[in-house]
Amino acid sequence: MKPDLLQQIRKPTLLLDEKKARKNLKRMAEKAAAQHIRFRPHFKTHQSAQIGEWFREAGATAITASSLSMASYFADHGWRDILVAFPANLREIETMQELSARVRLGLLVESEEIVTALGKNLALPVDIWIKIDTGLNRAGLDVNDPEAVLALVSEVRRYPGLNLRGLLTHAGQTYHASSNAEIREKYAHSWQALAKLRGEIASGGNPSSEISVGDTPGCWLSDDLGQVDEIRPGNFIFFDSMMFDLGVCAWDEIAVAVACPLVALHARRNEAVIYGGAVHFSKEALQQDGQASYGYAAFFTENGWQFTGRENRVISLSQEHGVLRLNPADFHCLKVGDLIGILPVHSCLTVDALENYLSLDGQEISTLLSG
Amino acid sequence: MKPDLLQQIRKPTLLLDEKKARKNLKRMAEKAAAQHIRFRPHFKTHQSAQIGEWFREAGATAITASSLSMASYFADHGWRDILVAFPANLREIETMQELSARVRLGLLVESEEIVTALGKNLALPVDIWIKIDTGLNRAGLDVNDPEAVLALVSEVRRYPGLNLRGLLTHAGQTYHASSNAEIREKYAHSWQALAKLRGEIASGGNPSSEISVGDTPGCWLSDDLGQVDEIRPGNFIFFDSMMFDLGVCAWDEIAVAVACPLVALHARRNEAVIYGGAVHFSKEALQQDGQASYGYAAFFTENGWQFTGRENRVISLSQEHGVLRLNPADFHCLKVGDLIGILPVHSCLTVDALENYLSLDGQEISTLLSG
Repeated sequence: MKPDLLQQIRKPTLLLDEKKARKNLKRMAEKAAAQHIRFRPHFKTHQSAQIGEWFREAGATAITASSLSMASYFADHGWRDILVAFPANLREIETMQELSARVRLGLLVESEEIVTALGKNLALPVDIWIKIDTGLNRAGLDVNDPEAVLALVSEVRRYPGLNLRGLLTHAGQTYHASSNAEIREKYAHSWQALAKLRGEIASGGNPSSEISVGDTPGCWLSDDLGQVDEIRPGNFIFFDSMMFDLGVCAWDEIAVAVACPLVALHARRNEAVIYGGAVHFSKEALQQDGQASYGYAAFFTENGWQFTGRENRVISLSQEHGVLRLNPADFHCLKVGDLIGILPVHSCLTVDALENYLSLDGQEISTLLSG
Repeated sequence: MKPDLLQQIRKPTLLLDEKKARKNLKRMAEKAAAQHIRFRPHFKTHQSAQIGEWFREAGATAITASSLSMASYFADHGWRDILVAFPANLREIETMQELSARVRLGLLVESEEIVTALGKNLALPVDIWIKIDTGLNRAGLDVNDPEAVLALVSEVRRYPGLNLRGLLTHAGQTYHASSNAEIREKYAHSWQALAKLRGEIASGGNPSSEISVGDTPGCWLSDDLGQVDEIRPGNFIFFDSMMFDLGVCAWDEIAVAVACPLVALHARRNEAVIYGGAVHFSKEALQQDGQASYGYAAFFTENGWQFTGRENRVISLSQEHGVLRLNPADFHCLKVGDLIGILPVHSCLTVDALENYLSLDGQEISTLLSG
């Protein structure tokens, strides 16, 4: 880190190492391209038009958003094929209409009444993806219930404006796996289950459906992405302490860190109070030895930051401050007024909370949230 | 709730019941006034200039902020006595200087090096509060270590620009109490320990110090606020599911609810998917029967909302959506497209995430964050 860059930081600041992010991006884009699979990255992680351009340079032409507001923002920035991977919200039909006039809009459905409402109220054609639950138990039709899926397919096909695009799942159960092998298994199971379901739909006389999958752990770790048409990973661009703990990435693949001023030191407890709290990180926690952890410490170096072991971590977060516990040797290197880096537990939520990035070469990068 | 107000809601929206908030405010302000104790409410909970005016109407002239940015915002809105109840951050000395030129500024210190830096660098007088740890073990000097406090007092008195105002604690340990009686005990213990410390400082030949305390549970539940000079509660203006679970407030004293569109129903699990996730609520969790809970459901009624039991609660939060589990009878009242209210776990963090309020009479109320 350039000393003059650190010098100008007054408050918790989201630092972005562009080189690491672009390297992560390149690996994922190339893997998809090599297997002739559409790369439809989830932009909820970075929420930034400028970072979106890095994806365009890497060959992406289609994207995923998690809300219609986010889709509108990226439509304003030239994206023309946008899937909103969130169950269609009937209260926003006007926004869907507006958006479908200027982009190829994909919507997610899982119930007949939603399909009926979309079919009756949307004037322009949209792509319809049926949300399938392959084991996360959050949203979607059960992958083992082809009758329900076929009924929904029939309802979609009643409306000429609804283009049945395919089946979509988020195999977020990979986030709870205990090994890389288990992540790959869960990923493979999820697309295989969708492929079987696709066969059952086709044998019912329906047109062919695409398959869209998308969790970062599965897409990052699986050499064979399987018989899918597109992948929608998002988090891999930055990674975070959660992905590091899960064994998906190395610490030096984490592309973001929050620079936090040290405001108090408590030598008896080897604890530092940092300016950096729940309003900066959100409050996602990891569990470590039965204790909550809110992110690992990283010490700034000439070229970036250095992870120094899992024992150096944030053990509590209040609204504006956090308590960082360190091993004694590292603790004694600190003084009040210094900056420490924190590798966030969940980079997507931290980006949403901080709304702006500062790149390592001193450039401010805005997001949808910062305007 | 007026039907046309609910009708206009498209996305997760923070509803504010002004009557409840003003009633909570009146009770706290009157209690402080009756005991001749300065009411210095913490504005980090609402972060709104407009809501700040309600406090002014209730007699408040001094306030607490959790950051210098927040202090600057309220200074812009006419507040002239502001305590920043956060350890002084040396990287923001310029902001302190700017602010001390236009308000009576209180700063929080707990180490000699910070005091020295403030004394040498601040041109205009500021009030200095010494942060004392009365059991939370987060920040501050140990209340049982009068030597350390006396040493800091001496350092403060070396600088004519530093006005030693008093001793300050946040007895946040009341948040972990198991009964109202225990909350009152912890509150009483905290001010009594400060009063003893004040005596020790005075007997060292120092001028008299004030005492500032401030957790919502202790201030709300204690009839006798004790020998303190000021109280700094914040959360009581809105309360939330956490204060309700702790037994501090009744459900109908909670003055905020997030209106969330229902986007999917899963009858087999009695679960609804709501548009409302970690970016709207933050991710503070309560523990209930060994499971995380992210807020209780409230059904909208003619005049507001109705709590329907602790079993109706959000059991998981993703970035944009949550999963709400209900008892079967309540579940069967729902349909997609409806709105459900969620009583947030931690109202301060939810306000920070949503940035704007909608009052029950349809008025939009902005905050520091929404500009």
